Amino acid sequence: MVHNNRFESQIRFVKEIDKLKQVFRQTLLMDKSRQETSSEHSWHIALMAIILLEYVEGQIDLLRVVKMLLIHDLVEIDAGDTPCYNELACQTKPERELKAANRIFNLLPMDQAHYLKLLWKEFEDCQTLDSKFANAVDRLQPLLSNYYTEGKAWKKNKVRKHQVINRIYSIKDTSPKIWKYASDLVEDSVRKGILSE
Amino acid sequence: MVHNNRFESQIRFVKEIDKLKQVFRQTLLMDKSRQETSSEHSWHIALMAIILLEYVEGQIDLLRVVKMLLIHDLVEIDAGDTPCYNELACQTKPERELKAANRIFNLLPMDQAHYLKLLWKEFEDCQTLDSKFANAVDRLQPLLSNYYTEGKAWKKNKVRKHQVINRIYSIKDTSPKIWKYASDLVEDSVRKGILSE
Repeated sequence: MVHNNRFESQIRFVKEIDKLKQVFRQTLLMDKSRQETSSEHSWHIALMAIILLEYVEGQIDLLRVVKMLLIHDLVEIDAGDTPCYNELACQTKPERELKAANRIFNLLPMDQAHYLKLLWKEFEDCQTLDSKFANAVDRLQPLLSNYYTEGKAWKKNKVRKHQVINRIYSIKDTSPKIWKYASDLVEDSVRKGILSE
Repeated sequence: MVHNNRFESQIRFVKEIDKLKQVFRQTLLMDKSRQETSSEHSWHIALMAIILLEYVEGQIDLLRVVKMLLIHDLVEIDAGDTPCYNELACQTKPERELKAANRIFNLLPMDQAHYLKLLWKEFEDCQTLDSKFANAVDRLQPLLSNYYTEGKAWKKNKVRKHQVINRIYSIKDTSPKIWKYASDLVEDSVRKGILSE
């Protein structure tokens, strides 16, 4: 089969990213049957961004946000999922993930590799409104999952309230409505005894 | 916790769609370790549409296509995955899926429910250029998976070449380049003995 290099590179990337279906996160499915994969998580939050768009304060580019969410975890193919409350693992995360981003996105033609690496970096830096909203849904989803599974992943990882609040606090910048909801969930979780004070 | 009905409906929907992570498809992960879930498949093809956009003949709205792909399988939460080569199951598919679409999308506020039902219907009818491209990537991905897993799912379901060609033929309308690639894969699969003539 003769196809040009550009197309072949793109297909190689499409094949490679299948591996994200093998990366398991701390977060459980809502029925508690198993941990979710990073590909499932990425699908879920991309759809959440579409549904919850109206609560963003300011003008965002939804297509950019959705692209960001679909690619934001690809680095985990090499770097693995870094549990967000594991301080030691978080220290080495930027270096591991940058290396992974370079390898994985560089499978693509140069223009696409460059574009997606910038988008991934923007998500990580979390300074623009698009990336702040993307990060907001990325942080809301595991909170929902924990709330509806009686904090099973929180308990397993000995996570405490202040850690969850630190993790979700930035939602406030983008959407006071989603922040209010998320912080209410945290308070209710403590009240129900599924999250430690 | 007091939140308005609109927001609550949206969160109910976000929680409900978690169930798509429990729907398994015929298609295997590329490493053959297990079948993929419909949520993983939806993530994969949404990203494929972003990467392969340049091969569409005509002007498409990428955000609409990506939304379509992220929601196109939600009906399977109620209707299950209908294997595309099972003729009997395919006969009852439209009715089962319409019922599912009404239940699942109607969890949302009316405007969003209406919008997503139309988008889902457009994908199913496959008449517009956006939906034709969405269907093209939806058909290319299991072909790639079969090709790279030595046709394991094809063999299990006794699928033959003419069925695969029928399934992917519509790719031609949207993208001669992707069609050429896909039909070459089919020919090569027959040559390698992983797909029956």
